[in-house]
Amino acid sequence: MFYRIVTINISFCNQLKIIPRRRNVELIKRYCATNKILYPKTIFSGIQPTGSVHIGNYFGAIENWVKLQENGENVIWSIVDMHAITLQHNSTELKENILKLTAVLLACGIDPNKSILFQQSSVSMHAELSWILACLTTMPRLAHQPQYKEKSQTLKDVPLGLYIYPILQTADILLYKATHVPVGEDQVQHIQLAEHLAQKFNTTYGETFPMPIAVINKDFGRIKSLRDPLQKMSKSESDTKSRLNLTDEPAVLLNKIKKAVTDFTSVVSYDPENRPGVSNLVSIHSMITGMSPEEICKEVKHLNTGQYKLFLADILIDKLNPIREKIQLYMNQPKYLQKVLHEGTQKAKDIAFKNWLEVKDKVGYGTPIFSNNQQ
Amino acid sequence: MFYRIVTINISFCNQLKIIPRRRNVELIKRYCATNKILYPKTIFSGIQPTGSVHIGNYFGAIENWVKLQENGENVIWSIVDMHAITLQHNSTELKENILKLTAVLLACGIDPNKSILFQQSSVSMHAELSWILACLTTMPRLAHQPQYKEKSQTLKDVPLGLYIYPILQTADILLYKATHVPVGEDQVQHIQLAEHLAQKFNTTYGETFPMPIAVINKDFGRIKSLRDPLQKMSKSESDTKSRLNLTDEPAVLLNKIKKAVTDFTSVVSYDPENRPGVSNLVSIHSMITGMSPEEICKEVKHLNTGQYKLFLADILIDKLNPIREKIQLYMNQPKYLQKVLHEGTQKAKDIAFKNWLEVKDKVGYGTPIFSNNQQ
Repeated sequence: MFYRIVTINISFCNQLKIIPRRRNVELIKRYCATNKILYPKTIFSGIQPTGSVHIGNYFGAIENWVKLQENGENVIWSIVDMHAITLQHNSTELKENILKLTAVLLACGIDPNKSILFQQSSVSMHAELSWILACLTTMPRLAHQPQYKEKSQTLKDVPLGLYIYPILQTADILLYKATHVPVGEDQVQHIQLAEHLAQKFNTTYGETFPMPIAVINKDFGRIKSLRDPLQKMSKSESDTKSRLNLTDEPAVLLNKIKKAVTDFTSVVSYDPENRPGVSNLVSIHSMITGMSPEEICKEVKHLNTGQYKLFLADILIDKLNPIREKIQLYMNQPKYLQKVLHEGTQKAKDIAFKNWLEVKDKVGYGTPIFSNNQQ
Repeated sequence: MFYRIVTINISFCNQLKIIPRRRNVELIKRYCATNKILYPKTIFSGIQPTGSVHIGNYFGAIENWVKLQENGENVIWSIVDMHAITLQHNSTELKENILKLTAVLLACGIDPNKSILFQQSSVSMHAELSWILACLTTMPRLAHQPQYKEKSQTLKDVPLGLYIYPILQTADILLYKATHVPVGEDQVQHIQLAEHLAQKFNTTYGETFPMPIAVINKDFGRIKSLRDPLQKMSKSESDTKSRLNLTDEPAVLLNKIKKAVTDFTSVVSYDPENRPGVSNLVSIHSMITGMSPEEICKEVKHLNTGQYKLFLADILIDKLNPIREKIQLYMNQPKYLQKVLHEGTQKAKDIAFKNWLEVKDKVGYGTPIFSNNQQ
């Protein structure tokens, strides 16, 4: 298979890349124009309520969501708890994480009056559409998904959820007739599956869904683990010092930055290949301030890496402290958080239900109509 | 794997067999007793709204459902339209078949005041529970299902639905905490999967579901194709003369019986191995009248097979004609049929919703509860 990576100057966020499959730029432009006529631009994305949210999630996704929201786009964000159960989990923690994540998203700037923010499992139609899409998929098509291939190699008894969750992802997107899906680069093939299934549904049952376009944030995955800067910063790494959480106290952040793995060269330079540790710190710095790595290295040329860590910690704490304080404020109001989720879920349901009625009817579940010659 | 087949004298239908896995009779008795304390006896089964209903379906399932209903059991019957889309289908036909099947079931004696009769796709929780159960299943466990093994050998690109539909079947059963599931012998391993997943759920999230027991009707699959009496009578055989539909006019029934494949021996005898054709006719006769094959052969010893076919056609027409007439009456009242389905669906939803709230809470989707130390 051959994938083309192109950048299109789209109005809502011109630093984003769109990666469609086997299409050239001209075709995409034409397609986007057609799509736009048939389907209003709708942006959908999801985030799992697992573990703590770290700055990799913030710069790789959430910050961008807020920008899209502030640009007045039609945006729908889902707390995808159904995806959080594909592997073993603790039910009590999951419940708490759903509210925690709501607090985090609000603290980061998601505004329930401008964005639709909702809990996936509260909208039954995700599962219902998922079943219909599963019936349109073949097993070989799913087995090609790279994330499945990768994860299934380390597990003896592969859980079924690991294999079929891209179908649920497709349902998440299509249920809202989403046209654009901000995701990480590792999700591109899942969006291509969504594109394939939208097309398959349209061919089988008549034009219904837009073909969703993956919108890749170039900052996704750019922040690396502080303990192993060759890996991206991750919720699942066992060493908690590897990641900077949005809820970390200033002293914790300072300590984690101090202990970040660097090398034996004391000068601060940006060279991700040969000096991944210090370059990762410069990347973080760059994302917080918007300065380029070159500008940063020039600014801090009088500091050695040890001094630079303290300098960066100050900047990081200045950035995260207001967010952390807001998270705490929201966490003290669980009823408000539940209300936000409830109201968002109602809005999501209204859109989903309209589309679901159309799907039900087309698939043949819908209110049966009896023709006279069928007695 | 080793399966034990036992017969237990259970109150509701003593000609039925129960086939549990790796348990001896004593264990089953003890289990049934425990199950009964924890879970009220609830009987669930489903039927697909595909093609015409023939006498194989009638004697193999529907007649039995009516008996269970008349015995005052707590029975739930589902028109499983979600299962009807796992392979290619025509949406308009599916809609019509849902109503047709409702008419057939009512005509056969299913009474909406005594049975819960509903349309599967109208109860969203089948799909929702299915997702949770999929996350508790491993891929090797599913690949062992014999129906998947068999069907997947003839298809190049196996549809995903064919692989995962036993999970949906499990959800169908568990959603109502069903304790007994009347099925055909070819479904036994699916009920064992349901038993396995009930146990898996209970172990993972706490006691929730009874372990369902497969109740096998000995008449299931006993009626063979009239054109190829080595195969069972089937909705999917291309030659329509192979099956006797409940909606067939008397002349059609007579013609099909006349054309039934027999052999060159003119005497009527019951010997399924050496004379499958005529023995199949005797079986049909036996099921209609309740007489044993021996009694029948004795009664008709003065007739040759040609004469016997006319004799049997009369008996068959007497049995099916009142049913066909009732089907026609119901088919003329599509609004009544929709009302029946709608009311049945409401009753099914009430039970399902109560169980679903319990499941949601246990899995961790449920209304989040914030503990103070989690801020």
